[in-house]
Amino acid sequence: MPEPGIYVLRLSHRRERDKRITTHVMLTARAFGARGVFYSGDEDPKMEEKVRDVVARWGGPFEVRYEPNWLAFMRRWKEGGGFICHLTMYGLHIDDCLSEVPRDRPVLVVVGSEKVPRVVYELADLNVAIGHQPHSEVAALAIFLDRLFSGAELKREFQGAKLKIIPSRRGKRVIRLGEQ
Amino acid sequence: MPEPGIYVLRLSHRRERDKRITTHVMLTARAFGARGVFYSGDEDPKMEEKVRDVVARWGGPFEVRYEPNWLAFMRRWKEGGGFICHLTMYGLHIDDCLSEVPRDRPVLVVVGSEKVPRVVYELADLNVAIGHQPHSEVAALAIFLDRLFSGAELKREFQGAKLKIIPSRRGKRVIRLGEQ
Repeated sequence: MPEPGIYVLRLSHRRERDKRITTHVMLTARAFGARGVFYSGDEDPKMEEKVRDVVARWGGPFEVRYEPNWLAFMRRWKEGGGFICHLTMYGLHIDDCLSEVPRDRPVLVVVGSEKVPRVVYELADLNVAIGHQPHSEVAALAIFLDRLFSGAELKREFQGAKLKIIPSRRGKRVIRLGEQ
Repeated sequence: MPEPGIYVLRLSHRRERDKRITTHVMLTARAFGARGVFYSGDEDPKMEEKVRDVVARWGGPFEVRYEPNWLAFMRRWKEGGGFICHLTMYGLHIDDCLSEVPRDRPVLVVVGSEKVPRVVYELADLNVAIGHQPHSEVAALAIFLDRLFSGAELKREFQGAKLKIIPSRRGKRVIRLGEQ
């Protein structure tokens, strides 16, 4: 079982149709403070490579792992003492249930693609809605993590980063760490 | 010039490569309180149709418009008294500049795709970073609007909605309005 912290499970990735959305889910998971991401559906080494390349340049730690059997994986997660949070527009409004997310256990945040099997709603300890309107699993994940970490995740320093941005009013300033 | 409120401009949409990401940008704009979205790049009637279909079922008001000449459009926006906010990881941290966004003028939130021309940074009244890590324009837009509206946007009622979700701990409950 992993250490306490936030992990993301992206369900039923389809290599062609979802490659950019799943990449955005993964980069959002990393940038907003998750420790790693698992995905099921089609295995996609090129996409994994893209995310690992971001980790190599911008820092970590952040892991990506393909998980062919998401159902067995979710069951093991719960048996091992982990908590499961499923993001869905049908769930409880985030304002009404965020406090139910435990801070001292590993939390798996599940984001689906279009049609999510009923068993996911049942296995989840919490079905959370980031509002009840149709939008995007990328937006939902970002808001969930931003609220959970109270915005502090956007100031985090990443370990081993080779690049760092200096905020500017106009234009782009990037420094290479170790070469200032 | 439009009324005060938030509008989104999605730059350089590529029909094949970006269709899902741009759709997510548009649905996120709507769900998080923008009044409408403009986009440049490839004109994409099928994508517009998809977004209008969501508006027809889930309510509005929300407009989608293709804008072939984004540069002239941005210039007119400023000449007409509008404010431009460009979301970019190179900008000022949102925590340090959100208060500069005016509440009494039309605000255009510009989100690019991979390479954004320098002139956008120059024309923008504010270049805002949703953290300085690479992630997603969908995540960036969601966080920007969520912070700007202090979360109230996720409780908004949409006009003319035919469908409404009843929040549930498990499963899905949707009602058809006018048929309760």
